[in-house]
Amino acid sequence: MASLSDLPIRDDLRGQSPYGAPQKHVRVQLNVNENSHPIPEAVARDIVESLAAAVLTLNRYPDREFTVLREGLAAYLGHGIGTEQVWAANGSNEIIQQLLQAFGGPGRRVLAFPPTYSMHGIITRGTGTTWLTAERDPGYELSAETVVAAIEAHRPDLVFLCAPNNPTGTPVALDVIEAAYEASDGMVFVDEAYAEFMPAHAPSAITLLPDRHRLVVSRTMSKAFAFAGARVGYLAADPAVVDALRLVRLPYHLSALTQAAAIAALRHAPEMLATVDDIRAQRDRLVSELPVLGYRAYESWANFVLFDGLDDPHATFEALLERDIIIRDVGLPGALRVTAGTEQETTLFLEALAALAPRGAR
Amino acid sequence: MASLSDLPIRDDLRGQSPYGAPQKHVRVQLNVNENSHPIPEAVARDIVESLAAAVLTLNRYPDREFTVLREGLAAYLGHGIGTEQVWAANGSNEIIQQLLQAFGGPGRRVLAFPPTYSMHGIITRGTGTTWLTAERDPGYELSAETVVAAIEAHRPDLVFLCAPNNPTGTPVALDVIEAAYEASDGMVFVDEAYAEFMPAHAPSAITLLPDRHRLVVSRTMSKAFAFAGARVGYLAADPAVVDALRLVRLPYHLSALTQAAAIAALRHAPEMLATVDDIRAQRDRLVSELPVLGYRAYESWANFVLFDGLDDPHATFEALLERDIIIRDVGLPGALRVTAGTEQETTLFLEALAALAPRGAR
Repeated sequence: MASLSDLPIRDDLRGQSPYGAPQKHVRVQLNVNENSHPIPEAVARDIVESLAAAVLTLNRYPDREFTVLREGLAAYLGHGIGTEQVWAANGSNEIIQQLLQAFGGPGRRVLAFPPTYSMHGIITRGTGTTWLTAERDPGYELSAETVVAAIEAHRPDLVFLCAPNNPTGTPVALDVIEAAYEASDGMVFVDEAYAEFMPAHAPSAITLLPDRHRLVVSRTMSKAFAFAGARVGYLAADPAVVDALRLVRLPYHLSALTQAAAIAALRHAPEMLATVDDIRAQRDRLVSELPVLGYRAYESWANFVLFDGLDDPHATFEALLERDIIIRDVGLPGALRVTAGTEQETTLFLEALAALAPRGAR
Repeated sequence: MASLSDLPIRDDLRGQSPYGAPQKHVRVQLNVNENSHPIPEAVARDIVESLAAAVLTLNRYPDREFTVLREGLAAYLGHGIGTEQVWAANGSNEIIQQLLQAFGGPGRRVLAFPPTYSMHGIITRGTGTTWLTAERDPGYELSAETVVAAIEAHRPDLVFLCAPNNPTGTPVALDVIEAAYEASDGMVFVDEAYAEFMPAHAPSAITLLPDRHRLVVSRTMSKAFAFAGARVGYLAADPAVVDALRLVRLPYHLSALTQAAAIAALRHAPEMLATVDDIRAQRDRLVSELPVLGYRAYESWANFVLFDGLDDPHATFEALLERDIIIRDVGLPGALRVTAGTEQETTLFLEALAALAPRGAR
């Protein structure tokens, strides 16, 4: 049997390990920011009926333009977004990859502000694009001044912003995105995977799209829509951006099953999103109760909370895992990230953490 | 509204048009080598039941290793192929893209033998890999001598073979693949999308895998399995190759729906493949009847036939389209490609072609 080193693999991949949050079967899964609430039964039934209809013509290639799905996504986004401004792929990972295939690649550079979604850097490097980073403000915040200074220093081809940011939950104000756009002559990519968990009054970067043809805003159905297993990411942008993605997408990249399931789910957007209020309440509960246990919890506009003040995050992670609860070690000093689950899951997590000695020790 | 030229798109994409066979709704669709037979009803029912079960946990990310699917694919392939030797993706297009991300890319070169599957070149260039070509033997055939001479002349990092070849249908003998492997020190990729349509006695390149860790054989469920809409491509190779692909795949690239549908279909492999004999019979009918109409039909081991002797292939394509029949203009001189459909579809095509003047004129 051969090993990786026997193969003519690319030099830049040698010695690397594959990305991967652990996939363990534990009782309380609060590690990958899934929606803990399953799809409501009535909605599930409609999705299955739509899938059954799609199976009848599965011998044919799917609609390469997934027009009905794009219509559904545009209607869901609102703000006057048209079908021709929407694009979708197998998870927002693939959205990001296509964006980099069109606007990044060898000789081009992405500027990002870590800590941020780890796949941003992995996909950037995977497409041969250079990954540049700049520091955030204290408390993982991001001001217009900081972003503009970094853009002026680096002159990147693409600026990546994650709003709200993963793994910190930090909001990104619209004036930051506007300033990034003004300061840059490249593409400005705003990852809004967690947008539905923002406060009700908070505007999305979608509202900035008119007259900004270099701005791209991505979303996902994985989180608020409880659709992580279906792998549906999408974006809104100028129609010319969508034209650019058509040049790099693999033809028929979205299966007929994916299209059918997502179209059906979008028909039930209000029911699918009914869990969002519950999740926000549990997130806010985490933010208020973690300090009672002696930890610092960061403000979060997403469906998870970053907290620090742990002597040994890895030991705390393992101690919780022994209690059948999995959260996420995101590699930040003294910190762990926990997804806001159901009320019961949140209670189990908080009780298990409280049962540990102060600062997370056993 | 912006246009593509207003955007900072990569220079090598400027002026390009997106790939795309026309997606038209016509009565007789013989243009993209789909399986004209829908999935048998009993099988469809089991697939829908499996999808319904998957919908219940769609709020969770899918199994990133799609282990049950890989077990099913390994069992289907036989020849002692183990689960650890199998990998799958959203169509064999994504298989090829991942292969090039791991073993190709900037500074590396693919050698291929056109005319061949057009996506091979598109994906190669899309990953920044150089696309080198060498000539085939007369009649689009491919001998070991021709392949070895081209490999020795170019010393490519990857050799791409399509067996049987699309769009010509040409078989590739195993000794050609063996010789390519011996002559090369890079990866040898054999695209067996149409393998199930080969004569029953013809061995697959799968049988060459033992002790050849640089050999990769891809398959698809799109053709024989009548599963084009589900987007399931896969490969068999040394486990080290699979490890290499784990470094470049987007995490959770295969949705829970894709996995559930494919697992269910594989449980019914004999029923799913029952149409293959019918399709082979129609293909052989095309090969014998097209010469009666004055055309040269090439030997085909796939589910389509290339024929030439047309004065104006595009005019013939349009004349058939007026009769609600779509076939494929693959850009070869005097030639068109037609998929072997059902008996009725094949009859309609042959009758429509016979109704045209000799050499395809109106």
